[in-house]
Amino acid sequence: MRTESAPLQSPAPLDLIPPQVRAAQDYETLATDFIEPARLAYVAGGAGHDQTASANRSAFSAWSMLPRVLRDVTAGHTRLSLANENLAHPILLAPVAHQRLVHARAEIETARAAEATQSCMVASTLSSVALEDIARAAGPHKWFQLYFQPQRADTLGLVRRAEQAGFGALVVTLDATLQAPSLRALRAGFRMPPECVAANLRDASRPPELPALQPGDSRIFQGLMRGAPTLQDLEWLLAQTTLPVWIKGVLHAGDAAVLATSGACGLIVSNHGGRTLDGAPSSLQMLPAIRAAVPSRFPLLFDGGVRSGADAFKAIALGADAVMVGRLQVYALSVAGALGVAHMIKLMREELEASMAFAGCATLEEVRADCLTPACMT
Amino acid sequence: MRTESAPLQSPAPLDLIPPQVRAAQDYETLATDFIEPARLAYVAGGAGHDQTASANRSAFSAWSMLPRVLRDVTAGHTRLSLANENLAHPILLAPVAHQRLVHARAEIETARAAEATQSCMVASTLSSVALEDIARAAGPHKWFQLYFQPQRADTLGLVRRAEQAGFGALVVTLDATLQAPSLRALRAGFRMPPECVAANLRDASRPPELPALQPGDSRIFQGLMRGAPTLQDLEWLLAQTTLPVWIKGVLHAGDAAVLATSGACGLIVSNHGGRTLDGAPSSLQMLPAIRAAVPSRFPLLFDGGVRSGADAFKAIALGADAVMVGRLQVYALSVAGALGVAHMIKLMREELEASMAFAGCATLEEVRADCLTPACMT
Amino acid sequence: MRTESAPLQSPAPLDLIPPQVRAAQDYETLATDFIEPARLAYVAGGAGHDQTASANRSAFSAWSMLPRVLRDVTAGHTRLSLANENLAHPILLAPVAHQRLVHARAEIETARAAEATQSCMVASTLSSVALEDIARAAGPHKWFQLYFQPQRADTLGLVRRAEQAGFGALVVTLDATLQAPSLRALRAGFRMPPECVAANLRDASRPPELPALQPGDSRIFQGLMRGAPTLQDLEWLLAQTTLPVWIKGVLHAGDAAVLATSGACGLIVSNHGGRTLDGAPSSLQMLPAIRAAVPSRFPLLFDGGVRSGADAFKAIALGADAVMVGRLQVYALSVAGALGVAHMIKLMREELEASMAFAGCATLEEVRADCLTPACMT
Amino acid sequence: MRTESAPLQSPAPLDLIPPQVRAAQDYETLATDFIEPARLAYVAGGAGHDQTASANRSAFSAWSMLPRVLRDVTAGHTRLSLANENLAHPILLAPVAHQRLVHARAEIETARAAEATQSCMVASTLSSVALEDIARAAGPHKWFQLYFQPQRADTLGLVRRAEQAGFGALVVTLDATLQAPSLRALRAGFRMPPECVAANLRDASRPPELPALQPGDSRIFQGLMRGAPTLQDLEWLLAQTTLPVWIKGVLHAGDAAVLATSGACGLIVSNHGGRTLDGAPSSLQMLPAIRAAVPSRFPLLFDGGVRSGADAFKAIALGADAVMVGRLQVYALSVAGALGVAHMIKLMREELEASMAFAGCATLEEVRADCLTPACMT
Repeated sequence: MRTESAPLQSPAPLDLIPPQVRAAQDYETLATDFIEPARLAYVAGGAGHDQTASANRSAFSAWSMLPRVLRDVTAGHTRLSLANENLAHPILLAPVAHQRLVHARAEIETARAAEATQSCMVASTLSSVALEDIARAAGPHKWFQLYFQPQRADTLGLVRRAEQAGFGALVVTLDATLQAPSLRALRAGFRMPPECVAANLRDASRPPELPALQPGDSRIFQGLMRGAPTLQDLEWLLAQTTLPVWIKGVLHAGDAAVLATSGACGLIVSNHGGRTLDGAPSSLQMLPAIRAAVPSRFPLLFDGGVRSGADAFKAIALGADAVMVGRLQVYALSVAGALGVAHMIKLMREELEASMAFAGCATLEEVRADCLTPACMT
Repeated sequence: MRTESAPLQSPAPLDLIPPQVRAAQDYETLATDFIEPARLAYVAGGAGHDQTASANRSAFSAWSMLPRVLRDVTAGHTRLSLANENLAHPILLAPVAHQRLVHARAEIETARAAEATQSCMVASTLSSVALEDIARAAGPHKWFQLYFQPQRADTLGLVRRAEQAGFGALVVTLDATLQAPSLRALRAGFRMPPECVAANLRDASRPPELPALQPGDSRIFQGLMRGAPTLQDLEWLLAQTTLPVWIKGVLHAGDAAVLATSGACGLIVSNHGGRTLDGAPSSLQMLPAIRAAVPSRFPLLFDGGVRSGADAFKAIALGADAVMVGRLQVYALSVAGALGVAHMIKLMREELEASMAFAGCATLEEVRADCLTPACMT
Repeated sequence: MRTESAPLQSPAPLDLIPPQVRAAQDYETLATDFIEPARLAYVAGGAGHDQTASANRSAFSAWSMLPRVLRDVTAGHTRLSLANENLAHPILLAPVAHQRLVHARAEIETARAAEATQSCMVASTLSSVALEDIARAAGPHKWFQLYFQPQRADTLGLVRRAEQAGFGALVVTLDATLQAPSLRALRAGFRMPPECVAANLRDASRPPELPALQPGDSRIFQGLMRGAPTLQDLEWLLAQTTLPVWIKGVLHAGDAAVLATSGACGLIVSNHGGRTLDGAPSSLQMLPAIRAAVPSRFPLLFDGGVRSGADAFKAIALGADAVMVGRLQVYALSVAGALGVAHMIKLMREELEASMAFAGCATLEEVRADCLTPACMT
Repeated sequence: MRTESAPLQSPAPLDLIPPQVRAAQDYETLATDFIEPARLAYVAGGAGHDQTASANRSAFSAWSMLPRVLRDVTAGHTRLSLANENLAHPILLAPVAHQRLVHARAEIETARAAEATQSCMVASTLSSVALEDIARAAGPHKWFQLYFQPQRADTLGLVRRAEQAGFGALVVTLDATLQAPSLRALRAGFRMPPECVAANLRDASRPPELPALQPGDSRIFQGLMRGAPTLQDLEWLLAQTTLPVWIKGVLHAGDAAVLATSGACGLIVSNHGGRTLDGAPSSLQMLPAIRAAVPSRFPLLFDGGVRSGADAFKAIALGADAVMVGRLQVYALSVAGALGVAHMIKLMREELEASMAFAGCATLEEVRADCLTPACMT
């Protein structure tokens, strides 16, 4: 059993588009040659036995897309507005922490790909490079993902830095208080390597001394869950900034209904890529009920298992305005840096356009539930 | 990885009926010995990950056939009328492009098999031999499949040639604007070999100069989809010819309802063998809804995954008037040329007759939905 | 590929109960050591791709049995009356042709096992030994299975011999006009060996000259199906004998409803072990609808996939009065002759009794649909 | 084939917590190194073909857990009251017979783990060490599982000894009259080794001479089932003791409804770990109907397939007040004795707490059916 991850075992990223990549998803296969095994286990794994991570993928197989004939889509496009931002296409780069795990220049490469492809990138609180550097490399569309910090001053510090750096929105993550590498990553001997530090948090204050657990206290309830964000935290945040705030990590229609009136600009349907509660349903399974629980034009993003433009099409048809791509972003980054990420997005966008064209949809508004039919499982 | 298809590696087709073939579907297995691997990957593959091509096959497993007892079927037959053509049986040879990929004499052999078995053959616009030659070899029942050409004059040229050559109907394909070999074929290194030219299109005019894509234009929407057939194209075509016109590539009940009043003589329920939109439902899954959406006697053909007379029985029970056989035609052609194709049809027809006899159906009219029951999936 | 079955390759049957057999179904595994491969392929296979033969087995997995507590079953028994015959238990030996394929003394051994276990045996028209010899070896409960012969005189001859020999009922098979070995048996090179002759038919008259097929005639409809039994044949038969007549091979509720008023003493729900129409549903799937279609006390036997007492319990719970065991009978015969068959029945009966005891059923009447619950398929 | 179990082949249990165990369920995998194969086959197997044992596990996959956001669970706990006993958590050690099969000190180790983790342990009638010794080692929460003995005096003797030893409740098992090792254990050559004697029964009177079976009697109905507990037995027991009495082995809602009014303090939904009727449904499948059939606050325990805190969460959400852990207890015992069992419980409890925290449940009362959603099976 490996006891430490060995960053030097993988070949350097390519500086060209790999010719064998023909579909966006091909980066997933190819990445196995570019990411050291323990790190790959960490990236690819979810939590526990990867049940939810697997469900995220297989959920897409439950739906087929219905082709139409004789529809004129020559004026077609993939443009959309999200929180007053006009985007060329609905494929966003999800916030992914610690990108130095797979590429030395980490989020800088991702940001360059975002700019090159007119994509909206969401920088993580736990990025390997400072948010200001990411902002400089990224194009006009960039948001900042925020984890609440133990001290509000530190949280506020991140918000101000994000505003200053020009991020156009905040994405506050609510679903990741408890998190651990998957059993698969643990068995592969994964440990976060020393070069992967959270660059944004270098200057954070020391966390306050928490009262020690008392006999009979639970390490979960009275321990870790003390750090969970509360409604008060959310309200406080919304009062601190004029940036639009997205809420990430909603999987329950009841939560969605309440949060839609919280002042947030939109919700991100997500189970954190299956990295938190192993045994949670797939994001796609919960999407229709969440769409039905919020006002009809209320912005919803989707995150969880997207590997192709067809997947994006299905999520949009089931109620998402746009989708976020996490793991595939990392895979493409590992293979060919900015070039890889940009190529992956270009392929996925064309795959989405092809799905729309087949389905006779000239715009994303036309991508609706009646474009799908439940797949016949045999 | 192979980088080119090597046509000479396969043994020559047999000049006898292979004794190990006992069911029509056996030609599928046997063909692996007669078709060079990259070409086989191209023929067998659908689009993308072959999801729809697989679904076409597995959809048949969702239905069981109900045997009856004490029914007198000694006057039974498989005759039917389609677009004023009286056919001996409902198994048609689907239009398949580039048959030289698997046999040097290509469609000539297929046509001879059609004549020998009283089958209706549909010649493809993209046939390896000229439509006039096919027409001469085929029997009385032959239709011509038409792809709209970039220039209407070329389309009209094909129509006139087909009329002249004696084809009894046109089959216009609407669902194949976007198409690419499957990932499987790409990985096998498939390229269309030089001997596979579209013989019918040798004299076509050069396609008109299309305006170049503008910045921001989509290669899909503003590029490839410019070539998609429109309702105007269809209406124009119907006005040019007195031949009956079948519309091929319908998978949506809404489209079917509209097209049933378009002047076409019938529709062909098809997803192009899974070669266009990977992720489309199986043809069989959509067939009942399409049958319900068109007038009760409106002619419907079925295409997608038929490998046996039992498959044909199920498609007819679910609403088709007749079925088309694509890949199995190619497999039989590769194995034993005209003899193979004729033998395959003979077997499939007997399998259909046996299914009818078991189900107590003396005629195709008696093959209805109540002859089937949903299979219990365990 | 084998071209002929080689009867001498298998070890002689044991003359003791094999110690490794702990459940009736174990004979199925063990038989692979005692039956020559091509013959085994013939016995084990159904028709075509064995879809229906497989479905017969898997259908039992769709149901679970519900255990009860505190039920007094110490007066429990498995007795039942069928067509005025009082049986000790509801496990019948199905008619199986050509038993010499697996044991030199063939049906004589089976008959001895029937007597030893107080089982009702159904001798096949196509038995390897004469019906009179079977009758002498069998116990008091014996029925004769009748295939209509090309000439009514021959059919009548069989009926009279069966009456004479003391068979207590006739089982007329209606579902096997078309039949062929499975592809699996064909591929294994199975041919009926010369020692397997239909002993009962040695003296049958030569079949009448049938008019040859005309051009355009179908080998199925105008050929083989001429031999299919008609309602007139059935009525004729019922008029010829005072023996109770069971009708075997019913799978459709509509047929069952009609036949229940035909004068037959009962029906046998069966798809001929999947040996006729490959693609027919499992017998178990159709059983509840057939039970509902006939009068509530009308006798129904069940045949198809029974390998254990639990299977018998499920079939009885879903509406059968008793079950017939086909393949497992042959397997046990091949392993240890009469001893094997008797042991198999003894085990199956005890398995049935254990299922009844768990379910709190003291008699077969108490074995009803509410003893089962649909299995949760995950 | 092994013909005898060889107790000395397995390594001695560890005296430390194995570092590779990260989830409670990991003890299942690790145990394969610590339990001799034939014994492992006996422990792991159910009855027959292990259908029910497998169903117990797979049933949990039919449900997903719904995470919530912004719920305050910092006052969370897992406390509950059961039959007037206040427990720190709802994970009980199920009664497991013959623990010497996997550890020389057997139930003494288990009892020590129960005390260390404030768990309620249920000692088996068939324990390898005397109930008095178990009672001394266990903590304050201990119940005694009772099998009715052939002689009431012996049953009463066990009750009195249990009362004397300080057990706080009785658990009377009703579902295990018929039991045999699984085919898997039989094939592995398992036999109960001589060191595994039922310590509590050493002094039991000789069973009374039962009248021999008469010809025609059934070994099941007139034999084994004579020993099955009756309603009179239960009523008699309830009259003999003032201890609370749990009834174990209920799987049918109708039985549950009746037994809820019998005077028992609660029911244990169980199929005996799949060790009795192979083909019975999973415990989890039947739990909701049983919950619905008894008064809303009537205590229900759950037993069958629990391997993780998430499993416990699901069973509680579907109506159980607490869960019992059987096989995993044995696995942990085999690996590291008391330390292993205590570690397993600690992990499972934290897993349960984490599931509750994710689902926003601060107490077990909040763990209800709306915390789950049917898993999308693809």
